[in-house]
Amino acid sequence: MDKKDKHFQVAILLYPGVTALDAVGPLEVFSRMPGTEIRMVGKEVKPVITEGGGLYLGVTHTLAETPSPDLLLVPGGTTTPGQMVDDDVLDWIRRVHKTTTWTTSVCTGALILGAAGILKGKPAVTHWYKMGVLRIMGAQPRPAERIVQSGKIITSAGVSAGIDMALWLAEKMAGRKQAEAIQLTIEYDPHPPFDAGHMSKASKDVQKLAKKIMDERMPASQHRLAPRIAWRRFVDLLRTGR
Amino acid sequence: MDKKDKHFQVAILLYPGVTALDAVGPLEVFSRMPGTEIRMVGKEVKPVITEGGGLYLGVTHTLAETPSPDLLLVPGGTTTPGQMVDDDVLDWIRRVHKTTTWTTSVCTGALILGAAGILKGKPAVTHWYKMGVLRIMGAQPRPAERIVQSGKIITSAGVSAGIDMALWLAEKMAGRKQAEAIQLTIEYDPHPPFDAGHMSKASKDVQKLAKKIMDERMPASQHRLAPRIAWRRFVDLLRTGR
Repeated sequence: MDKKDKHFQVAILLYPGVTALDAVGPLEVFSRMPGTEIRMVGKEVKPVITEGGGLYLGVTHTLAETPSPDLLLVPGGTTTPGQMVDDDVLDWIRRVHKTTTWTTSVCTGALILGAAGILKGKPAVTHWYKMGVLRIMGAQPRPAERIVQSGKIITSAGVSAGIDMALWLAEKMAGRKQAEAIQLTIEYDPHPPFDAGHMSKASKDVQKLAKKIMDERMPASQHRLAPRIAWRRFVDLLRTGR
Repeated sequence: MDKKDKHFQVAILLYPGVTALDAVGPLEVFSRMPGTEIRMVGKEVKPVITEGGGLYLGVTHTLAETPSPDLLLVPGGTTTPGQMVDDDVLDWIRRVHKTTTWTTSVCTGALILGAAGILKGKPAVTHWYKMGVLRIMGAQPRPAERIVQSGKIITSAGVSAGIDMALWLAEKMAGRKQAEAIQLTIEYDPHPPFDAGHMSKASKDVQKLAKKIMDERMPASQHRLAPRIAWRRFVDLLRTGR
């Protein structure tokens, strides 16, 4: 592939309340693949506030301008999908999913894919805090997995799992050597100072505190988002099979 | 610490050409510490383009508005410091460093600390691609380390190393349990699909390709940055001992 010729398009969906690392981890991997165009896509070309506040990420392309990405990545964020995205975004996801090579999510981005109705009957993973919602959406939760493949749909676990997923995808798309070179350029040789990154590894006390952090962080109100569509709407969507 | 009372201030420096993950990895950790205010700081309140292009991050506070952060984090980016930041930023770094609890860098952010003259005679680490520059700046490179402490100055290796450093700092600042809970909330249970994230682990072929990716990615011209001060200026700075 000629590296000057950017003919593989990655669309990373942004919305108010998105978790920055969900989007940025994979961005750093995909942007180092040859021939790859990265688009930060959203309803409007403007900055969006991220989960937790403090940081703004810029939307550079609208949904309408991006009708056929090769790879769609949906990051997670505030965990009520009705407060993350609206019907326009869900319609766009359903539409572009028809022609993507890969449709992917990080963290609670899986709930957005679920709300769009494309995880029905499929194995999938999301952040442990919202794993049960996947079942409500008709998916088959895989809480022990970090990356779950179902055909061209790839879901990954919470936040930092997007980096692993993106490297996994980079190997499929650009080959092992390129993917390893990308890993080396971002020096992804993880050495966390402790080993509490999965529910199966954390102590009960740590699990409890982590849930408390999530409870306090998650209310979308802190991002000053108007709830655009009710949670119920998502369940209706699934029921009517759209 | 009362979690409603944000009296620990983290300043993350942004500039055109900054590597997004260098800033966002630590952000996700620090923003989950109780009582912590995160500021994205830069010369002007405006979006800055990130290394590789495509993504904009928003500066929310100016340097002048942020005279005494408790923790300064300097992310890396395009690797000629003269094209990353100018004298105003270096002056600010030197000034705030006097009163910080922690002064930290990710990746080539160490070169900015070096250019500010605060790594002289100190052990430090940066991205492998620019390790030699640390020595020119009078620091003692520690290429085998991922996190290097020298008193209150903490430098970390390339890009993703910022996540490990931030968790390490979170333990120092908020205790082991809080730090482990943060690790769990970002599900940082890394499982890279291969193990080429450090120069000592990558094959010669992968090292060569990674260098090529860096060579192609690094020229600041792609970020449309005007070189604000010459490289030589940094060396002069060090020589004159400022």
